[in-house]
Amino acid sequence: VNIRRHKHWGWGYEDQLPSAAQLRETAAALASHLGLTVSELEWPVALEELELAPPRVTVPAGLSDICVSDDHARASHALGKSYADVVNGFRGRFQHPPDFVARPRDEREIERVLEWCAAETVAAIPYGGGTSVVGGVSPDVAPSYNGAVSIDLRALDRVLEVDPVSRAARIQAGAAGPALESQLGEQRLTLRHFPQSFEFSTLGGWIATRAAGHFATVLTHIEDFVESVRAITPAGVWASRRLPGSGAGVSPDRMLAGSEGVLGVITEAWVRVQPRPAHRHSAGVRFGSFQSGAECVRAISQSGLNPANCRLMDAREARTTMAGDGSHALLVLGFESVDHPVDASMARALEICAEHDGDAREGGHRGSSDAVSAWREAFLGAPYMRDVLVAMGVLSETFETAITWERFPEFHERVSMAAQQALREACPGAQGQLSCRFTHVYPDGPAVYYTVLAPARRGEEVEQWQAIKQAVSDVVIGEGGTITHHHAVGREHRRWYEKQRPGPFAAALRGAKAAVDPQGIMNPGVLIDPAR
Amino acid sequence: VNIRRHKHWGWGYEDQLPSAAQLRETAAALASHLGLTVSELEWPVALEELELAPPRVTVPAGLSDICVSDDHARASHALGKSYADVVNGFRGRFQHPPDFVARPRDEREIERVLEWCAAETVAAIPYGGGTSVVGGVSPDVAPSYNGAVSIDLRALDRVLEVDPVSRAARIQAGAAGPALESQLGEQRLTLRHFPQSFEFSTLGGWIATRAAGHFATVLTHIEDFVESVRAITPAGVWASRRLPGSGAGVSPDRMLAGSEGVLGVITEAWVRVQPRPAHRHSAGVRFGSFQSGAECVRAISQSGLNPANCRLMDAREARTTMAGDGSHALLVLGFESVDHPVDASMARALEICAEHDGDAREGGHRGSSDAVSAWREAFLGAPYMRDVLVAMGVLSETFETAITWERFPEFHERVSMAAQQALREACPGAQGQLSCRFTHVYPDGPAVYYTVLAPARRGEEVEQWQAIKQAVSDVVIGEGGTITHHHAVGREHRRWYEKQRPGPFAAALRGAKAAVDPQGIMNPGVLIDPAR
Repeated sequence: VNIRRHKHWGWGYEDQLPSAAQLRETAAALASHLGLTVSELEWPVALEELELAPPRVTVPAGLSDICVSDDHARASHALGKSYADVVNGFRGRFQHPPDFVARPRDEREIERVLEWCAAETVAAIPYGGGTSVVGGVSPDVAPSYNGAVSIDLRALDRVLEVDPVSRAARIQAGAAGPALESQLGEQRLTLRHFPQSFEFSTLGGWIATRAAGHFATVLTHIEDFVESVRAITPAGVWASRRLPGSGAGVSPDRMLAGSEGVLGVITEAWVRVQPRPAHRHSAGVRFGSFQSGAECVRAISQSGLNPANCRLMDAREARTTMAGDGSHALLVLGFESVDHPVDASMARALEICAEHDGDAREGGHRGSSDAVSAWREAFLGAPYMRDVLVAMGVLSETFETAITWERFPEFHERVSMAAQQALREACPGAQGQLSCRFTHVYPDGPAVYYTVLAPARRGEEVEQWQAIKQAVSDVVIGEGGTITHHHAVGREHRRWYEKQRPGPFAAALRGAKAAVDPQGIMNPGVLIDPAR
Repeated sequence: VNIRRHKHWGWGYEDQLPSAAQLRETAAALASHLGLTVSELEWPVALEELELAPPRVTVPAGLSDICVSDDHARASHALGKSYADVVNGFRGRFQHPPDFVARPRDEREIERVLEWCAAETVAAIPYGGGTSVVGGVSPDVAPSYNGAVSIDLRALDRVLEVDPVSRAARIQAGAAGPALESQLGEQRLTLRHFPQSFEFSTLGGWIATRAAGHFATVLTHIEDFVESVRAITPAGVWASRRLPGSGAGVSPDRMLAGSEGVLGVITEAWVRVQPRPAHRHSAGVRFGSFQSGAECVRAISQSGLNPANCRLMDAREARTTMAGDGSHALLVLGFESVDHPVDASMARALEICAEHDGDAREGGHRGSSDAVSAWREAFLGAPYMRDVLVAMGVLSETFETAITWERFPEFHERVSMAAQQALREACPGAQGQLSCRFTHVYPDGPAVYYTVLAPARRGEEVEQWQAIKQAVSDVVIGEGGTITHHHAVGREHRRWYEKQRPGPFAAALRGAKAAVDPQGIMNPGVLIDPAR
């Protein structure tokens, strides 16, 4: 299988690496834009210089045709894409590389890998785009396992069937955003699931982690688009029927959604698709404060207007993403439809904005669209910029949650205060920055997304971030939020997740896992500890 | 606890029983309306004439304050409300009455009942409105149990908290539709969940069975309105956080939704509520055929207009429900909004109807609204009418499913043919009637609901229906449908459900149950057989 090689650390492909001069130029521009004083650029540890621990298990003869164990394969499957992952990769710290990487081309090959893992007590880690920010793909497994195999699903990247009548498509789990959309595009259809990781993350990964995407309201998470799912478990094929809706017991699809690889390997799904929107209207609306913008967004979220885009940024976030000048909070609002004009919806939404002192004055379409475009570009470019920030020695990470509206003002204040205090303590100096936006909104509350930026101490970035993460997560959980709205649990959120999820539910999930994965080989350490 | 007594069989309260003269008049009108020749009315076996099997276990001293075991309590908790249940109750056949009925007033009392059941190996059957049509509340348990207790939750009928900011309410599981809506109404809010069983069915029952309600599109099932759920399991309290959205692993709420009492007793939930709609628009549109109406409904369901009501009836169904004269299929279309006028949405929907030769000519509002009102009244009155039909000796039952659009035409033809053939065989004579409607529609397919009416042979009605049910269910499952879109699985759908659900999922659910209900006391026989 010939796959374009990813960088062994950080974001993007090997063939995209900027030159030293380009990197210096980008870094200088970023430092100036962010108002940060930064020291000299560092350079990542090269692939050839890595010293990976030798594999604990070797590729068995029966799997040699689909498995690789070279340094690039092992290093590039050792970490996800959290800030800590990128720093660790940059610094050549690959503590838990898989012993080898399997690249199955069909379900039978996945079954063969799982059979071998079960027989040999080797952990099996499903790997899609590798963009987990919570340790979901890191082969950091208990010593009771004899090793760990990363199962890279990117060879399964086809749209297998399109049903234009019911507007659905059967798509393999390893298809990343661009491949999936370009194949659907040939039939003038689109899934419209555009998470920030879109370029690399895959359909299977989205389903396994309940990823949230394009739509800011109503159908926010990928499972809202899923018609049926197919997965290979150690106990056999888990395949649901294609159904537009069902009330037959507990939903099998909703038990796979969010299972994060602990029950099996998702191989394909039927998902609901649609033609590209024929009607679109977007606008940027300024607010004097984030809280007044939040009140307005609450009203919009409860209006039933259901905008496709409804993303509120505080002043700093707007400035960072070049959508605003830092003097005002900004709401990016968008409506779209395959069928009918959306002007009336936008007009009503802007009325609600005006009632909340929102200001769309800057020339309506033209100025607003500029802000919206700036935001979009910054959104998709952010993961690339983060690699530069790491080289610059700037700590750059996010955390996100959701909370109901009536608790939001106090919640936001306490989380912000905790974050700022932790930032001051972990990164002394006056340059730490915290910003906030809503990524998705519901009639009963927003999904709240925080970004932290600060010059870090070289070599201690991970510990600095962990101190901040610990402090803010304690507050998020203590104040009633969720430890994640769409970044999943993985290994990194475990300690807070355990306070959040109902005790008997954890027992139930452990019981469910034991039934389909009796050897406990599937992504152990994620979500729950297997019973073994 | 003083609770208004239900009839010991069929639908409604004891104090609502019509007089013999009223019943004869209603029966004559129904026979004439339906064009059925029927014989003399029969009368139900009176409560005093019942001969129930003696209880296998007696009320323990520790629970005597909340338990009753008189004939009315046992008979009225022995059956659900399927046609077969009503016939059996009418004829005095109560084969599996609970040994006693518990009426807990709080969670602690539920825990006490479950503790006793677990210690004594007695099955615990959660009971809300008792309106299951699939044997979900029938204490028909394996002989390995020493008995069965029906846990009647109707004393838990309060709206405990209302959050007007986030538009949500904390409501006890035993609250039936009218009680729940009237309490919410005091704060000018509504849940807007109106299943046909609305008068008696309860919030907890809705969640346990993934009930579908008022909205014909987008948010069709009750779980779409659930913010968090609380349940008592034998392993402890299963309580999720109030969150507008979350991506933290598998959804605990979605594992309780559709669990049909096999994991625990749902005691309360936070649900999303809203003000009453300030803007409404409804219309009736005629179509030359059900299939041309279906094509139109597909276009509407894929338009993103998202009508609140979008119910297509075939000509016979329209006539039966007095919404049409039997010459045309009828689409009942409705838009509603708390915030903005819906005329533009209705206008666009009617344009789509016109493109599909739909005819809204009968005077727009006036004539259409009559059809819509007639349909609404018939919808809510149907369960009462069915009791009369049973007395008339008329078989009257429904079955329902969902299927994707591209398969619908052939699916509908095969299901209809099988139903008509089975009807002819089971009920010889020319008077059997089959009709069809869409209850809910999705961009990828409709929920299809069939009604069967035929004069039955006295005393053999249940066997006649079972022969029909067997034949149509085999086709529904064979052709790729779901055995239920919103009637749940219970005990009656088990054999088809087992062909539908993924094998490893069944193992996972059994594993989950064993973890929270190790003695297997929770509603055994529903969905799965416990491992014990």
